[in-house]
Amino acid sequence: MTSPAKFKKDKEIIAEYDTQVKEIRAQLTEQMKCLDQQCELRVQLLQDLQDFFRKKAEIEMDYSRNLEKLAERFLAKTRSTKDQQFKKDQNVLSPVNCWNLLLNQVKRESRDHTTLSDIYLNNIIPRFVQVSEDSGRLFKKSKEVGQQLQDDLMKVLNELYSVMKTYHMYNADSISAQSKLKEAEKQEEKQIGKSVKQEDRQTPRSPDSTANVRIEEKHVRRSSVKKIEKMKEKRQAKYTENKLKAIKARNEYLLALEATNASVFKYYIHDLSDIIDQCCDLGYHASLNRALRTFLSAELNLEQSKHEGLDAIENAVENLDATSDKQRLMEMYNNVFCPPMKFEFQPHMGDMASQLCAQQPVQSELVQRCQQLQSRLSTLKIENEEVKKTMEATLQTIQDIVTVEDFDVSDCFQYSNSMESVKSTVSETFMSKPSIAKRRANQQETEQFYFTKMKEYLEGRNLITKLQAKHDLLQKTLGESQRTDCNLARISVSSC
Amino acid sequence: MTSPAKFKKDKEIIAEYDTQVKEIRAQLTEQMKCLDQQCELRVQLLQDLQDFFRKKAEIEMDYSRNLEKLAERFLAKTRSTKDQQFKKDQNVLSPVNCWNLLLNQVKRESRDHTTLSDIYLNNIIPRFVQVSEDSGRLFKKSKEVGQQLQDDLMKVLNELYSVMKTYHMYNADSISAQSKLKEAEKQEEKQIGKSVKQEDRQTPRSPDSTANVRIEEKHVRRSSVKKIEKMKEKRQAKYTENKLKAIKARNEYLLALEATNASVFKYYIHDLSDIIDQCCDLGYHASLNRALRTFLSAELNLEQSKHEGLDAIENAVENLDATSDKQRLMEMYNNVFCPPMKFEFQPHMGDMASQLCAQQPVQSELVQRCQQLQSRLSTLKIENEEVKKTMEATLQTIQDIVTVEDFDVSDCFQYSNSMESVKSTVSETFMSKPSIAKRRANQQETEQFYFTKMKEYLEGRNLITKLQAKHDLLQKTLGESQRTDCNLARISVSSC
Repeated sequence: MTSPAKFKKDKEIIAEYDTQVKEIRAQLTEQMKCLDQQCELRVQLLQDLQDFFRKKAEIEMDYSRNLEKLAERFLAKTRSTKDQQFKKDQNVLSPVNCWNLLLNQVKRESRDHTTLSDIYLNNIIPRFVQVSEDSGRLFKKSKEVGQQLQDDLMKVLNELYSVMKTYHMYNADSISAQSKLKEAEKQEEKQIGKSVKQEDRQTPRSPDSTANVRIEEKHVRRSSVKKIEKMKEKRQAKYTENKLKAIKARNEYLLALEATNASVFKYYIHDLSDIIDQCCDLGYHASLNRALRTFLSAELNLEQSKHEGLDAIENAVENLDATSDKQRLMEMYNNVFCPPMKFEFQPHMGDMASQLCAQQPVQSELVQRCQQLQSRLSTLKIENEEVKKTMEATLQTIQDIVTVEDFDVSDCFQYSNSMESVKSTVSETFMSKPSIAKRRANQQETEQFYFTKMKEYLEGRNLITKLQAKHDLLQKTLGESQRTDCNLARISVSSC
Repeated sequence: MTSPAKFKKDKEIIAEYDTQVKEIRAQLTEQMKCLDQQCELRVQLLQDLQDFFRKKAEIEMDYSRNLEKLAERFLAKTRSTKDQQFKKDQNVLSPVNCWNLLLNQVKRESRDHTTLSDIYLNNIIPRFVQVSEDSGRLFKKSKEVGQQLQDDLMKVLNELYSVMKTYHMYNADSISAQSKLKEAEKQEEKQIGKSVKQEDRQTPRSPDSTANVRIEEKHVRRSSVKKIEKMKEKRQAKYTENKLKAIKARNEYLLALEATNASVFKYYIHDLSDIIDQCCDLGYHASLNRALRTFLSAELNLEQSKHEGLDAIENAVENLDATSDKQRLMEMYNNVFCPPMKFEFQPHMGDMASQLCAQQPVQSELVQRCQQLQSRLSTLKIENEEVKKTMEATLQTIQDIVTVEDFDVSDCFQYSNSMESVKSTVSETFMSKPSIAKRRANQQETEQFYFTKMKEYLEGRNLITKLQAKHDLLQKTLGESQRTDCNLARISVSSC
């Protein structure tokens, strides 16, 4: 037998077990608290989502109303225009078309944001309400399941405690029986040892005097040995019985130990996991997914609708065209812009001649005049062609200025990390750029020069047109003068 | 000579010409009015565009501020959470991640709408202001050019009038000279006719008495004829001179007519067109184009930014995952969810045996127990497998309900022609659908059944786990019992 100090006392074992169970019980409580907390957070999140979308629905509705008002303000203005034909006429002009599409776009956006707001209120929020209800109900049910599992686990631990105690009791009984048996064995050994010593001591004494004593002693001794043996047998039987009980109790303890460890493992590895994802989370992620996808669908539809409108505007902007607008304007005011009837020759007092007379004596003068006109025209044309070239080059410069592609504002949407610096970045983009101011001054200067050249060119063209017409008529007539006769050479009363 | 009734009188011609010129003058005035009107409309349109964008900038700013407030309201809440670690922990959960991205999106949109508003105010509106200034200035200059061209045209018309009058005058002189010449010719003829008659008459008279008279008469007649001839010559010269003047005047008239018609044609066909598109419209369409493209660029950048945000949310929604969230939760609360230490066998009072004892006399009992366990387990497993199948089928039904793809709201953005019917259409979409309510009732019923089966399954698994652990230990030990010895057969004091 080893020293009792080397093995744990019953109390120590029980205390250790109690500690272990207490720790598990604390963990189980914490687990429930953790689930409660997750449930609370989930309910809070869903409440936040509802509040968020409710408030956002208000914002979208507000935005929509403001856009509607904006569109109406300008549409009412057009509607109030008394002359509907005039309004209709103006609409064919490309800038007016752009303007109408801008207003349409605002109306479209207004309508879409109302729809968005309505989807928030009547589709998305009710979904979150449902998810929240479902979550609460499921958490409650999940906790019930979890509590049941924890109770079962505690039962297993209590069972283990109980079989351990039984093992302790039977093992103690077995040890006690064993020590009693050992005592009996010691007594038997002592009894046997005493008889051997007495026989050795009696040998040197007289044989006669000792013979009676010996017989009497032998009898006493024999009955004592028998008594001891009987006691030993009894104790042996007790020990065997207790030992068997202890073994069985230990077996039960060992089996319960195995079952307990398996149950604990199952609970921590499978049950907890199943409670969370097959009970608490049942449909939660899927329903949340659908609610958020509804939001995404709404936003993407809004985006698409807006984009379609922007496409229409872009198309109208691409079709901004001065030439076709001019054409439309002239058609619109046809009576104002259509050329008048040609001025016809009005013969005076029945003057029969309606053609240029190019016979002698005016012929040579006309020939000379035609030649002079021709030479003047060629000079004028060269000069005016120069003016035109300068004018066109200047026009090109202006075109280059006014068509510069300075409309990309992507940079404004590239924010630096600090959100606060947005405004200053944007404000710089257009007006305050020194290059723009310079370009603008340059533009006006060029414009001034352009108009000077334009006037010069038009004046030149004016003169050329007149002289050219005269020259052409002269040339044509002189070419025909061999054939025609204006009767100047043989003036008579009856002719001319 | 034809009757004066057959050709127009001077006054008629002049009156007709005056009418024609008056009409042209009226057209020219109308043209200027038309340009003025177009200028006014243009200025008005540009003013409207400025007002529109100024108002829209306000609306966007308002919208942005509201979005900012909305985001801040919820972000402040998270920020105020004292336990930053807790907040950080929660962020790893997929629904919280979605929520954070939603708030980010609102912040992003707020920022983008501020940018939009700023671009309206500091880029687009200044552009329209410039276009308006340019337009006004150009119209003024264009009108000057147009006025000059009209003045020139009127000068040409006046010239034509003047040369026509000259032609009339010279032609009238020519006609007058011609009639005078004709008169002289008649007188001459008459004189010649008189002398022939007298000579015929004188022949029957006495020759002597009539001879003197004849000489005297001859003398008178000759001087008279001479006088008439001289007058006729004089008138012939006058007529020739006037006729030449008339021809030259007619030539000038014809040339002026040609020049005038060419000038009028040039003015109506070229000048007016040039004034409109090379002066009035100079840069107008191009500048308007750039202003509107700036608007489009801003809107498209806003759209892109928003879309990026939505993509991020979509990605987060796709990553909504119960399993990984459970994993993260358990890692987060590792101390709460980690399995405890295994329960170890605690030997009682130095009990040396720590294994199951499977020798006689307990052996046969254990063998029987093991067999009973085996048969009970196989029944339990079959039963629980059935429960599991039912449970899983029910779970699948719930999954089918909660993952139904009912989130497409495209229909809400397909408006009927009447804009007023929007609200009723949208509101029907989610909650009021009878199918949804039915589905929902169905879902809860199914859920109830699921939990019943779930509990049944978990209880079964509980029992199976315990019995299986015991069975496995028994089976293992019985398999080893040939080799091991728990000393029950030869119990001695020193052993067990």
